[in-house]
Amino acid sequence: MNNNYGIDIWSDGNFIIEDGLAKVNYDCKPSLISIVKDIRKQDFKGPLLLRFPHITNKQITTLYDTFNASIKEYDYKGNFNAVFPLKVNQLPNFIHPLVAMGKKYNYGLEAGSKAELIIAMTYNNMNSPITINGFKDKEMIHLCFIAKSMGHNITIIIEGLNELEMIVEVLNETKLACPNIGLRVRLHSGGSGLWAKSGGINSKFGLTSTEILEAYELMEDTDLVKYLTMIHFHIGSAMNSIKPLKKALRESGHIYAELKNLGAINLKSINIGGGLAVEYSAYERTRFYSLSEFANDVVFTLKEIAKQKGVDEPNIFTESGRFISAASTVLITPVLELFSAEYELDHLNLKENNPPLIQELNDLFNDMTKRNAYEFMHDSIDHMESLLTLFDLGYIDLQDRSNAEILTHQIIKKAISLLEIDDYEELKKLDENIQEKYLLNFSLFQSLPDYWGIDQEFPIMPITHLDKKPTRSASLWDITCDSDGELPFDLKKPLYLHDVNLNKEDYFLGFFNVGAYQDTLGMKHNLFSHPTEVNIVFKDGKVVLEKILESQKIIDILEDIDYDTDEMKSILSKNLSPEIYKILEKYLNENSYLKTIWSYYDE
Amino acid sequence: MNNNYGIDIWSDGNFIIEDGLAKVNYDCKPSLISIVKDIRKQDFKGPLLLRFPHITNKQITTLYDTFNASIKEYDYKGNFNAVFPLKVNQLPNFIHPLVAMGKKYNYGLEAGSKAELIIAMTYNNMNSPITINGFKDKEMIHLCFIAKSMGHNITIIIEGLNELEMIVEVLNETKLACPNIGLRVRLHSGGSGLWAKSGGINSKFGLTSTEILEAYELMEDTDLVKYLTMIHFHIGSAMNSIKPLKKALRESGHIYAELKNLGAINLKSINIGGGLAVEYSAYERTRFYSLSEFANDVVFTLKEIAKQKGVDEPNIFTESGRFISAASTVLITPVLELFSAEYELDHLNLKENNPPLIQELNDLFNDMTKRNAYEFMHDSIDHMESLLTLFDLGYIDLQDRSNAEILTHQIIKKAISLLEIDDYEELKKLDENIQEKYLLNFSLFQSLPDYWGIDQEFPIMPITHLDKKPTRSASLWDITCDSDGELPFDLKKPLYLHDVNLNKEDYFLGFFNVGAYQDTLGMKHNLFSHPTEVNIVFKDGKVVLEKILESQKIIDILEDIDYDTDEMKSILSKNLSPEIYKILEKYLNENSYLKTIWSYYDE
Repeated sequence: MNNNYGIDIWSDGNFIIEDGLAKVNYDCKPSLISIVKDIRKQDFKGPLLLRFPHITNKQITTLYDTFNASIKEYDYKGNFNAVFPLKVNQLPNFIHPLVAMGKKYNYGLEAGSKAELIIAMTYNNMNSPITINGFKDKEMIHLCFIAKSMGHNITIIIEGLNELEMIVEVLNETKLACPNIGLRVRLHSGGSGLWAKSGGINSKFGLTSTEILEAYELMEDTDLVKYLTMIHFHIGSAMNSIKPLKKALRESGHIYAELKNLGAINLKSINIGGGLAVEYSAYERTRFYSLSEFANDVVFTLKEIAKQKGVDEPNIFTESGRFISAASTVLITPVLELFSAEYELDHLNLKENNPPLIQELNDLFNDMTKRNAYEFMHDSIDHMESLLTLFDLGYIDLQDRSNAEILTHQIIKKAISLLEIDDYEELKKLDENIQEKYLLNFSLFQSLPDYWGIDQEFPIMPITHLDKKPTRSASLWDITCDSDGELPFDLKKPLYLHDVNLNKEDYFLGFFNVGAYQDTLGMKHNLFSHPTEVNIVFKDGKVVLEKILESQKIIDILEDIDYDTDEMKSILSKNLSPEIYKILEKYLNENSYLKTIWSYYDE
Repeated sequence: MNNNYGIDIWSDGNFIIEDGLAKVNYDCKPSLISIVKDIRKQDFKGPLLLRFPHITNKQITTLYDTFNASIKEYDYKGNFNAVFPLKVNQLPNFIHPLVAMGKKYNYGLEAGSKAELIIAMTYNNMNSPITINGFKDKEMIHLCFIAKSMGHNITIIIEGLNELEMIVEVLNETKLACPNIGLRVRLHSGGSGLWAKSGGINSKFGLTSTEILEAYELMEDTDLVKYLTMIHFHIGSAMNSIKPLKKALRESGHIYAELKNLGAINLKSINIGGGLAVEYSAYERTRFYSLSEFANDVVFTLKEIAKQKGVDEPNIFTESGRFISAASTVLITPVLELFSAEYELDHLNLKENNPPLIQELNDLFNDMTKRNAYEFMHDSIDHMESLLTLFDLGYIDLQDRSNAEILTHQIIKKAISLLEIDDYEELKKLDENIQEKYLLNFSLFQSLPDYWGIDQEFPIMPITHLDKKPTRSASLWDITCDSDGELPFDLKKPLYLHDVNLNKEDYFLGFFNVGAYQDTLGMKHNLFSHPTEVNIVFKDGKVVLEKILESQKIIDILEDIDYDTDEMKSILSKNLSPEIYKILEKYLNENSYLKTIWSYYDE
């Protein structure tokens, strides 16, 4: 384990370590701790979500530049287009800067539900593309027509024949202009990565070959062929390897060419969906390709097929969301407490007459030498097990049990030191229980739902102390009342943190690459809501805190889940003295995390 | 597979099948479909969440009656108390009836966060207990003192020594009366079931023996011993077996007795936490004990230890939430579409000259007999694989590929019929892809988050057609743009549904036992929000729909995630004709699910 928390692997140059601090590698290179302090000075306590629009901008720029370079290199005739899938992050403080920064590229938006479509209709730059995925009803298709009538460049991507029929109905009933139409094809070649099932023959989305032909016939019969501009596929989000993409490109490229040859005169684009992975690991690379390899493969494969089939080279669309948004957001969690089990020798309280096994533990501890250390350690663990049984049966008392706990842990500690065990693997076998528990002021369910749901790793790093060796193997606990609210120490991906005295100094952990999906999937377990969110921008070489959105007040959380908060206030005020009710009101108007206020009696 | 969807296993007599309909087994025994129709008549479309307060009441009554019967049977001297853990379901339409129905038992509430504590302080019946779990700061402890000053019977359950220190501080600084204190003990005996890690020596919560002794000393030094009334443990939620409970009871019973003997004069209660399981399976029982066995074990074990140690028999507290709330709620999802792959023979479109493998497929289909059916079927699958490769390489065209798809599926179908395969296991090996896909108008992320997060099963049953044999092996899809929004067909727990013509009739699936955790963990993926919720109560032998809470309007969802909706409306209205904007406004004021409105042009 080196001391840099894998920053070389996951940070992509966005963050650096300097003078023991994690710093933003941009403009005036502020440390994260200085940003955190600035925010806390304004009395925003609890966890923080820092968004860095310049990182989003970098990702957009990189995406376009890389694809355009491939297009130039291969003398490719089609152009490159991209949309951001709103489902990955719909929040206005993320979307507004994205839309502004994307304007010069004509970067567009993708929507998968009515609410997302409304966002796209309202804020998408007028010439940038909008694509519509997912299952649609006639109402949603009608909304697409309305977006088109606003002047939007919108493409409805068809998931089933019934959607085509609804387009015909809406067209006939409204006499509005028809949006472009895309066909989502169901490939037989599967994806890879955690989300692989979104590709392949059994996937939830897309049309089979037979259905594509049927759809084409239907479009011919209803004079819709002229609106068919795009075919679309998506082989799964966060591909680790580029191999399945090549197969999918070949398959969809042939479908494109076939449809062109059938007479789809305005079919000009292949939308390759999302799938660009983000490096979440702090331990070893899990993404085995670069963006240029990805772009080159797309351009080269499509060029080849177009040539083979004698059709025009298609325009390329991508819908990568994770790649654009993940790195832009950092979750900062204050450490509230360090819990180490209280097994110090000064708590040992041996009796005049101890049970024989306790006496034996004491002897093992005192007589241990380097030579017998292993043996004694194992003996002590056996004794401990027996003593716990004796306690359950009522043969020894609580003091005995405590003495047994302390002696066993001291024996293990002594053995480790005598044996000079550096190799953690070995040590782990001896004692599962020596990790320090770091209690963090956040909810894992609210802020890292993908960790809970799909075991998604996120890079973790303290934002200070980075010039000191971290010595404690750490388990992380959140403040929910749920035993799943834990990131346990994992021997294969060990996290070491610093031994800090929280009475004397603050200690914050950063969780990186949390800008994709975590905001929108966040759960209100125990009624913890969003952390306080801040956009960090740079003006004249200085950090500016923008769009500060404080974590919800308790009273607003209760209102949100439909409590009658006026009634609540009236019940509470009736049952409390006016002075105490006044104090209570302050709590109601604070956010729900811990240590958000210092004292009410100091005022 | 029998035809009753395991209702004997999971429904606990709450629902029955009669005349082909799922009915509520209570009062006038209405069918679920009649309730659904009544709600939809009032123009609430999309998914529905039906809450049945009478089932909550039955669970509360059963809990108290069963424990009180055990207490009587064993002539036990302690009494029985219970609290509902708010984290399991905090919604007012669930909590208000629960508190009202619990009044006669002094049924209380448990809180694990500040927001939950505010709910408990406001609405808990004044003499019923409140317990406070989880990590606390000084502010939360202060809130507990305020609750006490309102007259509440509140117990702060300590998770760490620092919390005791904060109690002393608040006591000194505020001069308010001190709440009762409980100690959460960390048992060495682990739990069982999915959530087992909440018990055991490495668990997130509780004090070791050494820490308990230290805590007791601290309480002695600060004159807090008189407030110590409870010890608490929790060995994990949804225990499948009762065995770990017995071990935990013995362990904690001894700790209780030891503390009594040390001088804890007001220590009177053992809080055994939650853990009562609910039967979620529709296939085989997973809960291997009855509530009376559970109650008898608790009472008997504690009685025995008290006798052995010569202390008073403790009062018993439980904090079961899942047992109280799960069964009370049913999710109803309309089926929007059935997607079967379009592989009917009338789509077959053979050419004059077909590629050799297609010709061979056609021969296999025509020449198949019972004798060669297996062999031909396997040959056809081999050919299909080869043909897909030929397509990717550009050797055959889209029509050929479609013909291959159709022929292969027809060959499999013919083989199955010739071989009269009843055994699905066998059939499955031959064809993975014959399931019908049922598209449901709901979001799995919003309504069944535990399915996504922890593979929690829920019983699924259509609410009509129950007198007809279900013939289609079913995969269920939700309407999110996420491939995880799927309940795939599982051969080990197969779901068969009916072949319905949705143009002629509605078809609704019920998801049962969804009343625990699903409401509060629901995620806003693709911005889908809560289904429309209704409390179903019975008055004078009739169904009354109470507290209808419509699914959020699209505009409110956007407001919730902090969009400036006035700005949005102004941008949209500026870019649309007044007539079209008027239509758009209707969409903004509808909920976000599909098919919520029928037509805007019929008006």
